[in-house]
Amino acid sequence: MVPARSPEFALIARHFTQPVRRGVLGIGDDCALIDVTPGKQLAISTDTLVSGMHFFADADAEKLGHKALAVNLSDLAAMGASPRYFTLAITLPEINDVWLADFAKGMFQLADQYDMALIGGDTTRGPLSMTLTVIGQVAPGKALQRDHAKAGDDIWVSGALGGAALALCHLREDIKLKPNVLAGAMSRLHTPTPRVALGLRLVSLAHATVAAIDVSDGLIADLGHICDASTLTAEIDWPRIPCHPSLLSAAPDVRMRCALAGGDDYELCFTAPPSARAAVETISREMELPLTKIGVMKSGSAMVVVRNEHDQVMTAHEIGAGGFDHFTTGSLAK
Amino acid sequence: MVPARSPEFALIARHFTQPVRRGVLGIGDDCALIDVTPGKQLAISTDTLVSGMHFFADADAEKLGHKALAVNLSDLAAMGASPRYFTLAITLPEINDVWLADFAKGMFQLADQYDMALIGGDTTRGPLSMTLTVIGQVAPGKALQRDHAKAGDDIWVSGALGGAALALCHLREDIKLKPNVLAGAMSRLHTPTPRVALGLRLVSLAHATVAAIDVSDGLIADLGHICDASTLTAEIDWPRIPCHPSLLSAAPDVRMRCALAGGDDYELCFTAPPSARAAVETISREMELPLTKIGVMKSGSAMVVVRNEHDQVMTAHEIGAGGFDHFTTGSLAK
Repeated sequence: MVPARSPEFALIARHFTQPVRRGVLGIGDDCALIDVTPGKQLAISTDTLVSGMHFFADADAEKLGHKALAVNLSDLAAMGASPRYFTLAITLPEINDVWLADFAKGMFQLADQYDMALIGGDTTRGPLSMTLTVIGQVAPGKALQRDHAKAGDDIWVSGALGGAALALCHLREDIKLKPNVLAGAMSRLHTPTPRVALGLRLVSLAHATVAAIDVSDGLIADLGHICDASTLTAEIDWPRIPCHPSLLSAAPDVRMRCALAGGDDYELCFTAPPSARAAVETISREMELPLTKIGVMKSGSAMVVVRNEHDQVMTAHEIGAGGFDHFTTGSLAK
Repeated sequence: MVPARSPEFALIARHFTQPVRRGVLGIGDDCALIDVTPGKQLAISTDTLVSGMHFFADADAEKLGHKALAVNLSDLAAMGASPRYFTLAITLPEINDVWLADFAKGMFQLADQYDMALIGGDTTRGPLSMTLTVIGQVAPGKALQRDHAKAGDDIWVSGALGGAALALCHLREDIKLKPNVLAGAMSRLHTPTPRVALGLRLVSLAHATVAAIDVSDGLIADLGHICDASTLTAEIDWPRIPCHPSLLSAAPDVRMRCALAGGDDYELCFTAPPSARAAVETISREMELPLTKIGVMKSGSAMVVVRNEHDQVMTAHEIGAGGFDHFTTGSLAK
C-alpha cells in the first residue's frame, strides 16, 4: 500500500495553497478552472526572473516574492487590465522552508492588495528561477495597446525614473551611494509599485485613445516599442524627465543613463492626445502620483529622439542608452 | 537617436511570432488579449521542464519542443478541456538559432494539431528551462476533476504504461535495451501523445461523472491524487495493467516498477461508474485506443492498493513505487 501524497505536494500545499477565492477550482487538480466575466476580454502576461540575471542569488526572499508578482502586474497595468489570477512556476535548488515562507509572504501581500488568486503552477528542482503568468480582465477595445499612439499625442511618464538603475549601479559597485540615498533607490529596485490603478484610470479616459508600456527595460527602449508598434517617432526632452530624487547627487552621465536607459522602474510611459491633458492632470492630482509630459509623438520611422537642454538631438553614445537586453548586457554582474 | 528594436525582440519575432490566429492580440504587447467563448470556463495549467531534471542537456531540440507542449496539453486532456492558447517562457544559456528553430518546429507542429495559438511569453538568459502555460475551454460543471470519483467506480487507463520509464532506465544505463525495443520505448519518452481527444470524449459521456488524471509521475502516484481528492481507496490488479510492448522482454521487477511507478507516459487514468462501461468501450473502439479496466474505487482513506496475480496485496517495497518526486528522485542522473 502506498500513501497518496508525495513530499512535493506537501510543499506546494504548505506555502502556496490558499482557499479558493475566485477561481472555480484552484490548486490541486490537473488544471485550474476559472470563470470569465461575460463581455470581458482576458489580458495575459508571463515574466521569468532568473537568479543572477534579474536578482542576486542572496536576494531577500520576501522582497523577491513581491517583485516577481510586481513585474507581472506591471504588464497588466500597462494594458489597463484589472488583475484577477496568477500562476507560479518556481524552480528551486533545494527545499528551504524559511525561504519559501518569506517568498510566499511577499508575493501574497501584493496579491491581496489586488484580490488576486494564485490558481496553479509547478514546483521543480533546478537553478533558482520563477515564471509567473498573470491574468486580468479588460473591456473589449479598451486595452492600452502599444499601437494606439498617434502623431501629435503627448508622451507622459508616471512617478520618477532611474532610482532602480542607480541602486543596481551601487550593487554592482560601479558607484557608492550614501546610506540615506541608497535606501530610497533600493526600494525602487526591490519593491517596485506596479501602476495598476493608473492603468485602470487611463482605460477610463473619455474620448482619448491611450498607448502605454511599463518601463522595465529603460525609458528609451520601452518607448521605442510604442514607436515600433505605432510606426511613429517619439521626441522627448531630457530636461523634462522626472528623475528619482536619489539621482540628484549622482554624476550627470550616471543620472542620464539611469533615467533614460535604466530598467526596473515599472513606471508607466503612455501617450494621449493633447485634448486629454486636463484629464490626465486630474488623474495625477487624485492619485497623488506625478504624471509628467516629457515629449510628443511625431510621424517618422520608429525612433526615439532625445533633445538636451539646448534643444539638440543627443546620440545614443551621449545617453549611454540601449536598454536592458537579456542576451547582451542582461547579467547583474559587470 | 536610438533604434527601437532590441536583439531580444528580434529573437522572439524570428522564432515564436505567428500571425494572430485566435487571440485578439498576440505576441508583441505588454499582454496578450483573448476572447472567451460565452458560457465556457477556462482551464489553465503550467508545467516547467528543467535541463538535467526533465530532459538531458543534449536532448533533441525538435522533440523537446514537442514534449514541452505535450506535457502541458496532457493536463488539459486530464480535465477534458479543449486546447486554445499557450504561453512560452524559455530561459536559454545562449542564442542558438538552429536549436531555437528546431524547438519551435516541434512545438508548433503539435500546437497546429490542436489549432492552438502561442499568445505570449518571455525569453531570458540562464540555465536551460522552459515553462509553458496552456489555456483551454470546458463547459461549466463538465471538467474531469480528481474529486469526482465515487466508491464502486471502475478505474480505467488508456494506452499502455511503462515505455517511457523503460527508455529512461536505458538512458541512465540501468539496463541495456535492444535497438528494436529501444525505438518504441524512446518514442514514448520523447514524443508522448497527449490524450486530448480522449479527454473530450470523456467529458461528453452521458449520465456519468468521470474523474481523470494524466500519468506523468507514475500510475500509483497519480491515481493516488484521485484517491486523495475523492477520499477513497483505489484497488488495482497488477495482471490487468496494460504494459507497453517494450516491457515484455524486461525483468519482472523492472516491468512492474516501470508500469506502476514510472512516469512520463502521459496516458489518462480515469474513473467511471460501471453503468458507463459499454460507452467507454465504444470510445475505445472508435478512437482505436486501448482503454483497460484495471480496478475499482472503494471507500477508505486515500490509498492505492495493488493486488498481484494471487490476489495478494503488494507492499510499496515489492512494487518499487513512490512515484516521481522532483525533490527526492527527480534528477535524470542516477
